[in-house]
Order: sequence, then structure tokens, then C-alpha cells
Amino acid sequence: MHAEILSIGTELLLGEITDTNAQYISSRLRDIGVNVYRRITVGDNPGRLLSAFEDSIQRADVVIATGGLGPTDDDVTARCLALALKRNLSFDENAWDSMRKLFIERRWTSTGSDRKQAYIIDGGFFIPNHVGTAPGQGIMIDGKLALLLPGPPSEMKPMFENYVIPLIREHFPSLAPIHYVNLNIAGLGEARVAEALADLLGCPNPTVAPYAGAGQVRLRIAAHGCDKGEALAMISKVEKEVRRRLGHHVYGKNEETLEMALGTLLGRIGLTLAVAESVTGGLICHRLTEVPGSSKYFKMGMVAYSPKVKIANLGVPPEVVYRDQSVNEEAAGSMAESVRLLAGTDLGLATTGFAGPEGGTRDEPLGTVYIGLSHKKAGISIHKLIYPSSRPRAKAYAAQRALYVLYRFLVEHYGKRR
Amino acid sequence: MHAEILSIGTELLLGEITDTNAQYISSRLRDIGVNVYRRITVGDNPGRLLSAFEDSIQRADVVIATGGLGPTDDDVTARCLALALKRNLSFDENAWDSMRKLFIERRWTSTGSDRKQAYIIDGGFFIPNHVGTAPGQGIMIDGKLALLLPGPPSEMKPMFENYVIPLIREHFPSLAPIHYVNLNIAGLGEARVAEALADLLGCPNPTVAPYAGAGQVRLRIAAHGCDKGEALAMISKVEKEVRRRLGHHVYGKNEETLEMALGTLLGRIGLTLAVAESVTGGLICHRLTEVPGSSKYFKMGMVAYSPKVKIANLGVPPEVVYRDQSVNEEAAGSMAESVRLLAGTDLGLATTGFAGPEGGTRDEPLGTVYIGLSHKKAGISIHKLIYPSSRPRAKAYAAQRALYVLYRFLVEHYGKRR
Repeated sequence: MHAEILSIGTELLLGEITDTNAQYISSRLRDIGVNVYRRITVGDNPGRLLSAFEDSIQRADVVIATGGLGPTDDDVTARCLALALKRNLSFDENAWDSMRKLFIERRWTSTGSDRKQAYIIDGGFFIPNHVGTAPGQGIMIDGKLALLLPGPPSEMKPMFENYVIPLIREHFPSLAPIHYVNLNIAGLGEARVAEALADLLGCPNPTVAPYAGAGQVRLRIAAHGCDKGEALAMISKVEKEVRRRLGHHVYGKNEETLEMALGTLLGRIGLTLAVAESVTGGLICHRLTEVPGSSKYFKMGMVAYSPKVKIANLGVPPEVVYRDQSVNEEAAGSMAESVRLLAGTDLGLATTGFAGPEGGTRDEPLGTVYIGLSHKKAGISIHKLIYPSSRPRAKAYAAQRALYVLYRFLVEHYGKRR
Repeated sequence: MHAEILSIGTELLLGEITDTNAQYISSRLRDIGVNVYRRITVGDNPGRLLSAFEDSIQRADVVIATGGLGPTDDDVTARCLALALKRNLSFDENAWDSMRKLFIERRWTSTGSDRKQAYIIDGGFFIPNHVGTAPGQGIMIDGKLALLLPGPPSEMKPMFENYVIPLIREHFPSLAPIHYVNLNIAGLGEARVAEALADLLGCPNPTVAPYAGAGQVRLRIAAHGCDKGEALAMISKVEKEVRRRLGHHVYGKNEETLEMALGTLLGRIGLTLAVAESVTGGLICHRLTEVPGSSKYFKMGMVAYSPKVKIANLGVPPEVVYRDQSVNEEAAGSMAESVRLLAGTDLGLATTGFAGPEGGTRDEPLGTVYIGLSHKKAGISIHKLIYPSSRPRAKAYAAQRALYVLYRFLVEHYGKRR
């Protein structure tokens, strides 16, 4: 039992809009246990759309298409599906009534071409659209389900949730939803994670798969084909083993970001934080303040982008600021310590380095970043990394690493759990 | 002459990530005059991937696939394309050398599995990746071009620009590129832009189309079917008319961001800037420092996230800080003025407001933001906006508006052009 998703619209093929529908439908089908084997994007071209429908209906049990249901001549989706199924389209009074109801409610005036949208494939059924004018439709044929939904996400999503999911569940009652957990990992590359978990990555159930992101790896543990309790137990067993092997590199679960994990940790321990940024230019503060409630522990950030500011406002000694353009251990340490004292917080975190494209000295090449961490009792620690890249990537990587340095310090000094 | 794009990765079919690669490649191919007829997404499944390659190569002149070039066993893209073309893969010393160069540069340690990525289809060529480990590759066969690129956009994009576009142009010299310009607009919503340009939006050539983004609108003016000089003249005429109607709302062209436009303007006028952020939490500083050379005019940022810091470190009067939780005109003005004086710059920009989900007072509801701007001679000006939304969106919107306030001030006081 598997599905294919068709995204229809020339504007997609021109790259003018991002296809978020296909992603949304994919993830919701996955949740209810439907495998998506293929997604296809075609334009509003009758020939290619017809052939795409023919192929998908032949291969898949469920075909869901979005787009091309509008009133204009280039909206050909329903006609092409009818052709692929060798059926006719007929005017459907129920579909038309539901459209008219919306027109009256919204005080829209109907153009003559609107009636076109009320034509439904013979033997099929219409799917009401309570947000826009184009009704959806579907047909069950030879045990297969074909469904057409409008392209605008604000119309498609409620129709998918309220009609399509119940319909699929009704027609395929034996579906087993997939259960899963995502573990978020920092401070290790994808290759290192794969190496540490080599034996687990080969398992058929639960499956374990790493996905690389910017300075982090997401590990998906998914179990299928068993009841919920059994699946969760299987996942939990593998999760424990992963955590045992990767230790504090696993900072979060599912949608938890590093800044969220840090927020939880700082909140629990009851520590406050100030940040002094040079190379990361405000990105660390920006990430920390994306977390609701961050004002409870994050007190102050200082983006010290000029030598003068580092000296006059942060109090870093001039000889340190002018050595290697402030890219040195002492500068990172002094910035972390100074911002902590200035803000009166428990912790100070600082970055200094060369983001590029210019900069770098004989001793400290482009891409060099020093991260300083100051704690009121544990004192100052310094971490160095070299990551020459584009300016945005260098900043992103340095910020991620700085947050991880802080996370790791907290876990090591205060423990992870209550 | 047309192309198909394959996006490869089970994580795509699971809906875990948005496929921005397909959109990017679509729009860039459109720019150089290549029609994309179909996009296909398949997982890391050898059978289905093989059949997708076979179909696409049969139908299209150019096939571009992204994803599945990594070192792990589930990365099967190169093997499947080789199978589809009935060719073998061989270890390529040049590809391996280019990988090793990056490893040495970045001081990464190679795991044994990395070598796998240096296997190239017989008769093909490798495409260097200067950002990540996985090289791309391509092959010209029976007049058709098949190209494989890594999935991470930061690696794919430079490879696409630097190698793939020249390659396609070389192999298909008769391509007629579409000429266009994108105008970037701030301080006006999409509906307002459409209203002001209603007559232009209906024109067949050049076409004019607005696309809404976060706090900005992008207007695409595109000409087709004529020689370059003629096309550029047509575009330039429409561009002038748009600029005449929208004035300083048009801040930039093509890839120029608001922070880049600001950087150019500040650099030209010779003014320096300091920023004090409360509600935007570092995002303004982060955006300003994404621009290479920003250290020339951006000197200091202060993220004053606690009342104590606003008072002790910025010098905002306590009675202002404690009124409506610092969300008031005087706080914004005082923050802008103080940070300017602290940093010794010509300009100070400040934000204060409620990003949510908590906050808001009787007088100042959730979503209220004050933007303060201080200039050494023109004094202080304050702007208010109300934009209740999710925390990340509220921050993004406030930051965009603050940058626009500064941009507008500079244009009005110093003029836009030299």
C-alpha cells in the first residue's frame, strides 16, 4: 500500500513558488502509515499531466494531486484525471451548491467560468472547500483512490485533514501508523555519528537514519508494523543505546533546538547568561531569543564589532585586541569574562574570529574562531575551531559550536537531568 | 530542449525537509532558457531510483539529480545512474584529490567510507565541491546531459552556478535566456504594490509579477523573445516607471538585501552605526553582519534583554524602563541615543516591544514594537508598529521594519545616489 503525490502548476516548474503542499501531504501520510514512493511535479500541460496520471494510477494505491482546479482554461487537472480513467465529467449539483454557499457567505460575485469547477468525474464524489471556490474531488476505482485538491495551502490543508485522512483510513483500514522519535545531535559530523552507530543503521525495525544539518545531525528512529506500545518500547530501547554511545552530543528530541535545550537547562539550574559576539555578529543572541521565556536567563548581548568597542565598552586590554585583529585566546576569554561581569550574570559566552571574505593573519588563518566561556566559579575556558567557508556559513557554524560549548559545559558541571 | 529534475532522499518523501533545491534549479534553468517539464522526487530506494533515471533520461535532454551522494550505504544515486546508463563506476583520482584537499584544509579526519564518494561513472567527469565532501559528477551521452549534485543547498548552489550552468550553455549553445530584473521592495504590502502597478501587471512582455516575502515584496520584470539589448531596454523602461511610482520603497535589485543596500549607503555617506535591540534580540545585528565589510560602518550592538541591563549598561532612565515593560516611545529613543553615544557612532538604531507569546500591557498590546533612530545632528525619531504573530515572525518583521526605517532616513537625508 503506497501513495504518489502530484503537484500541478507551471509556476512550480518555473521556480516561482516553493512546493510546501507536497511536503505537508508527505509528512501527514507518513504519520498515518502510508508510504509515499514518488512525488511528481508537472505544469498545466494536458499531455504531460495525462501521462503523469496514467503512470501514477498504474503504480500506486493512492494518488493525491494538488493544483489546477481553478476556473480558467489552463486549469486542466480534473479533465486529465478523467481522461486517464476513461470517464466523463458531469456537472454536480451538490458541488455547485457548496460553491454557491461560499459565494453568498463571502459576498463574492460569480463569473460564468466558476461553473466549470463543479464538474465531477463520473462515479466520483466532490470534497467541499470551505475556504476557497474550487471544490476537490475523488474517485475509488479498482481498489485505488485518486484525489484532487486545490493548490493554495490554506484551502488544501483543511480539506486534507477533514476529508482525505478519514477517507484513506476508511478505505485502507489495516494501515499501521509509524511511530518515531528524532534525536538532535551536535558536536559530531554525520560520518562520525554513522560510524558510532554502524550496527544500528543496518537494522530493519526500528530503522535508524542520520540526516545532516548545519553543524548538527538529526537521527530518526522509526518503528513500524506493530502496536503502539510495542513500537514505543522498541524505539525507547534504541534511543537509550544511542544516548549511551553519543552521550551529551544528543542535546534534544524532535523539534527541540540547541537553544531550546540550553534554555531548559539554564532555567532548571537557575543560571543567567550574557554573550559577547564578534565573529558571529549577533547570531547567538538571535538564536537564544527565539526561545519563548529566554529573557528569564538571557540578560545581555554585546556585539563588539570594532576594536574600540572591545576596548572601551568591554574592557579587553588593547594589546590583546590589537594582536591578530582580536582573534586570539586571550581576547575570547577576556570578552566572555567582561560581558559576564558587565551584565552581572553567572555565565559569559564569547566568539572572536575571521568570518571572511577578508581577514586572517600569518598565525591565525581565515576561518579561525575562538570561543570563550566564563563561569563565575569554574573560571574561563577557550575552544578553537577552524572552518573557512562563506561568511553566512562561517557565522552559522561558529554560533552552533559556541552554543554547543555552553551546553556541554552545563551538562558536565550540572548534569543533564533533574 | 527541456530538462527534468530529480530530488533524491527518503527524508523528502517523509516530509522531513522542504525541497528547496528543485525550486532553485527550476528558477535558474528558466533564467538561462531551459524549460523544465517535470520534477520527480524519489527516496533512497535503488529500484525506484533506477526506474526514475531510466524514464527521465529517455524523455529529457538534461537530467539534474540532487541528493544521495554521501558516504553511507543508503546513498545510491551514482550507482543507480550508472545502472540506468549501463556503465560502471571507477575510482577517480582527481575527485579523490579534491576531496582530500578539503579534508586537509578543514583538518577533518577521513573515515574509510569517504572513498566511495570519489567513484565516477565511466566516461563521465567529476564536479568539484568546495564546500562539502561529496563531489558531483556528470556525463554527456547520446547528446543528453545527466548531472548529479549533492543535496545540501550550500554545496549544491555554488556547484550549480560555477559548473552546471556553464556546462549546459556549452552543450546547448542555442539557448535563449530570459532577461529579467527583480526589484526588492520594503514598507509596502503585496496588495499595495499590486494596486500601484495594476496596469503593468497585465502586460504580456515584459511581464511584471509581485511575490510576497517576510516584510517585503519582490517584483519580477522579465522580457522574452527578443535580443538582449532590446530586452534590457524594455525592462529598464518598466523599472524606471516602477521606481517612479514606488519611490524609496524600492531599496534593491536582484540579490541585494536591505542590509546590503544599507551597507552600500552607509559606506558611501561615511556614517557609522550602533544598534540596541530588545524585542529583536540580536537579529538586526546578525543581519547587518551578514554583509562582507560591515565592520567598516557597524561598530557595536547591544542586546539589552533585561531591565537591569537597559538601565545599568545603556543608561535608560529607570522610570522609562519600568513603564509598560520598556515598551514605550521614550525607551526606544533613549536606547537609540545611548547606544550611539556609548559606541561613539553617527547613528543609533533601537527596538523594544513584545515578541510574545507572553507580554503586553493594557496600553501596549502584544505585537507592539517601537523603533528608535538617533542621528548625531537630526536627533531622535520614533516609529511604532503593531504586528502580533508568532515569536520568530514578530522578530523578523520588527527587524525588517527597523532596517527599513534606517534606510528611509538615509535616503531622505542624504539622497540615494552619488
